[in-house]
Amino acid sequence: MKYATGHLIQKSQTIAALATKACEPDSISSCEPCYIEGAIHTIRKMGNIAFILLRRYDGLLQTVYEEGKLSVSLSNLHDNTIVGMTGIPVLEPKAPQGFEVHLTNIQILATPSAPLPINISKWKLQTSLETKLNLRPITLRNIRERAKFKLQEGLVRGFREYLSSLDFTEIHTPKIGAKGAEGGANIFKLEYFHRPAILEQSPQFYKQMMVGVFDRVFEVGPVFRAEKHNTKRHLNEYTSLDFEYGYLTGFEDLMELETGFLQYSMELLRKDYARELELLNVELPNTEKIPTVSFAKAKEAVAEHFHRTIRNPYDLEPEEEFLIGKYYKEQYDADFVFVTHYPSKKRPFYAMDDPEDSTYTLSFDLLFRGLEVTTGGQRIHDYSMLLDKIQARGMSTEGMEHYLEIFRHGMPPHGGLGIGLERLTMMLLQEENVRETTLFPRDLSRLEP
Amino acid sequence: MKYATGHLIQKSQTIAALATKACEPDSISSCEPCYIEGAIHTIRKMGNIAFILLRRYDGLLQTVYEEGKLSVSLSNLHDNTIVGMTGIPVLEPKAPQGFEVHLTNIQILATPSAPLPINISKWKLQTSLETKLNLRPITLRNIRERAKFKLQEGLVRGFREYLSSLDFTEIHTPKIGAKGAEGGANIFKLEYFHRPAILEQSPQFYKQMMVGVFDRVFEVGPVFRAEKHNTKRHLNEYTSLDFEYGYLTGFEDLMELETGFLQYSMELLRKDYARELELLNVELPNTEKIPTVSFAKAKEAVAEHFHRTIRNPYDLEPEEEFLIGKYYKEQYDADFVFVTHYPSKKRPFYAMDDPEDSTYTLSFDLLFRGLEVTTGGQRIHDYSMLLDKIQARGMSTEGMEHYLEIFRHGMPPHGGLGIGLERLTMMLLQEENVRETTLFPRDLSRLEP
Repeated sequence: MKYATGHLIQKSQTIAALATKACEPDSISSCEPCYIEGAIHTIRKMGNIAFILLRRYDGLLQTVYEEGKLSVSLSNLHDNTIVGMTGIPVLEPKAPQGFEVHLTNIQILATPSAPLPINISKWKLQTSLETKLNLRPITLRNIRERAKFKLQEGLVRGFREYLSSLDFTEIHTPKIGAKGAEGGANIFKLEYFHRPAILEQSPQFYKQMMVGVFDRVFEVGPVFRAEKHNTKRHLNEYTSLDFEYGYLTGFEDLMELETGFLQYSMELLRKDYARELELLNVELPNTEKIPTVSFAKAKEAVAEHFHRTIRNPYDLEPEEEFLIGKYYKEQYDADFVFVTHYPSKKRPFYAMDDPEDSTYTLSFDLLFRGLEVTTGGQRIHDYSMLLDKIQARGMSTEGMEHYLEIFRHGMPPHGGLGIGLERLTMMLLQEENVRETTLFPRDLSRLEP
Repeated sequence: MKYATGHLIQKSQTIAALATKACEPDSISSCEPCYIEGAIHTIRKMGNIAFILLRRYDGLLQTVYEEGKLSVSLSNLHDNTIVGMTGIPVLEPKAPQGFEVHLTNIQILATPSAPLPINISKWKLQTSLETKLNLRPITLRNIRERAKFKLQEGLVRGFREYLSSLDFTEIHTPKIGAKGAEGGANIFKLEYFHRPAILEQSPQFYKQMMVGVFDRVFEVGPVFRAEKHNTKRHLNEYTSLDFEYGYLTGFEDLMELETGFLQYSMELLRKDYARELELLNVELPNTEKIPTVSFAKAKEAVAEHFHRTIRNPYDLEPEEEFLIGKYYKEQYDADFVFVTHYPSKKRPFYAMDDPEDSTYTLSFDLLFRGLEVTTGGQRIHDYSMLLDKIQARGMSTEGMEHYLEIFRHGMPPHGGLGIGLERLTMMLLQEENVRETTLFPRDLSRLEP
């Protein structure tokens, strides 16, 4: 009988582990050889030696190939040849990692069939976004391109770890549904065994249902928006970081929670993702204290400061969001601003109106360097208040029976928010287009790769 | 200027924290009152006192209401009334938590509008699966029902934490695509801005692309299968735990990784989810060593042992999987069995054929108590070998251009697997139907709630 024991897999040889074994150049003969794998990033010939740069998930490693010493000929090695290498790690201050590997053997694991359509070993890919996206599976091999998604991983880790530390439960809710949570035209439709169905544009109803079960929940998952915008900040599918928090004392709790998440995550990036921060030259934003300003006051401040006339008092134009960001950066050195009390008519029916002025809601957006990255707020938890608001809006309760049941049977005061992961990453990296920080974007014209 | 600082949100008062503050019955007068929130689970009247059981995310808490002592009348309190309670925590060996709270004040936060359609405070819900699912947002409030999904959370945490410790990178790949990764009829179709599109039935192609970028990747996300089966083990949308591992030395590495994940997760459940394990009376499976047996040998063993004739030598019937599980439990006390070397004709084109017998593949399923919970294997990483296999199957490469490009430009030897989260949870809890361990199931007849 053979067994799988789970004991064979060890954290494999890493560049960091090799570095600790590197020996002085004058003691090579007594030094132990090591084995390491990766893809050939570049080959640079210098007379009868060649520097082969190895690309691995943990960085680039310089190796030295000496003509005539190895059984594999240099002519059989190319960019993106996949190799296992044996050699002696030797200290070398001029090498990128402070050491290099003097090769004694190379094993070819796979050979590419064609040269790359684009030079990915360049520091910056010198090409258009369009080309980058068309060749995405290949261009992501560029170490700066992939670093963006390593940082994105860090943001997701931060979200989960922070909320888990506060006893939130992680949930997975369905993405195929019978009717859209918030209605509207921006919903993808599909046929589900001869019945009409939709792709969820938000886990809103489900996370509220789950507040009735676990008090505090979060979800990281895809959401789908059939919006016909083709802008630099819109996607038709994106990853949403959602939480919903029961027993809140006010919608301010939600902003405190988001601030806590941002503080935790920036610290996590600083600690565990230093290599990527350096590669991309990222300036971490200030999250110590985040100014909050009401929607109405923010509009006024921007109109006054930048000499603009207010065209629509009930909505923020992208230009206004940008200027709010600019204003708070200039006045308070703030990278983030919470804009609170959005007009009721621009928020969904389940938003809690401000008891002091029902034209507005107990809600907020978070702007990051002038772009909205979060929408959140307190929800109505009282059954009859919810029914009244649905009626006042002339909406039907059809298709919302299951949702309404939770309020009928007692729900705590609660609220929550949704963060667009790709937008958050975009603004963190100060990119101009959200597609730069989306692994495989979906938009009006792009369904592949 | 107001600020959100992130400092106000503390881990709130928990039952465990209260327990540490509970005082002896004879020193109540010097004891500090506490505040705690939750939903009323049950009210049991005993003369002029009543025991009010509070339901919170962290368990049930017994409180004592004494007639005439509080400003809130007992007649205003019902099952599922949402309350904030003030009282003195007092040691009481007979109470479920070893202490109870003597109430001094109750604040009603929300009142239900109607009695529950089903008694959720029962230990076991005495109702059909159909009714449970129809009333899912309410029946999940039952503490045993919700405990299933807390354990499910633990499995997902185990998957992520284990793979992250081995330097895997987490990715988020699109769920709307242009063409199915593995083709076939089981694909949901949708219209995407007047173009045909599909819902991904697996992140297979994308995770392989990302092995070319990060060497080791994983994803936790929804997958969609338009299968017309309505069985106890099929869902049309489920959560898939996927990983893909570059630079493998053989497909056995993948089984070692899965074994490591299972060992790590069972330990995590034992450590952090003891309450739920006890609530559901879960017997954790043996993961120390998992037997591996080839597809052909497993079929033979079962045919011989249970006196069955082999009807189809190239496929395992569900009955045979069940019997393999039974056989290995009886013979080796094994809860899990890896069945290896599946016939090539039953595996997708990208599966690596066994060089010793190309009728079979370097692949496996994991059976858990007789049910398949994982499919995995080594993939072809050589470009021309892949093209040859596509051609030999009479398939077209149309729609796979982006996928094939990664092999054209060098891919390491790699493989991976996909685990059905709901099935894994089902078998862990020894449930009869996968819908029992699916938060909001989607099947042939169910699109809501």
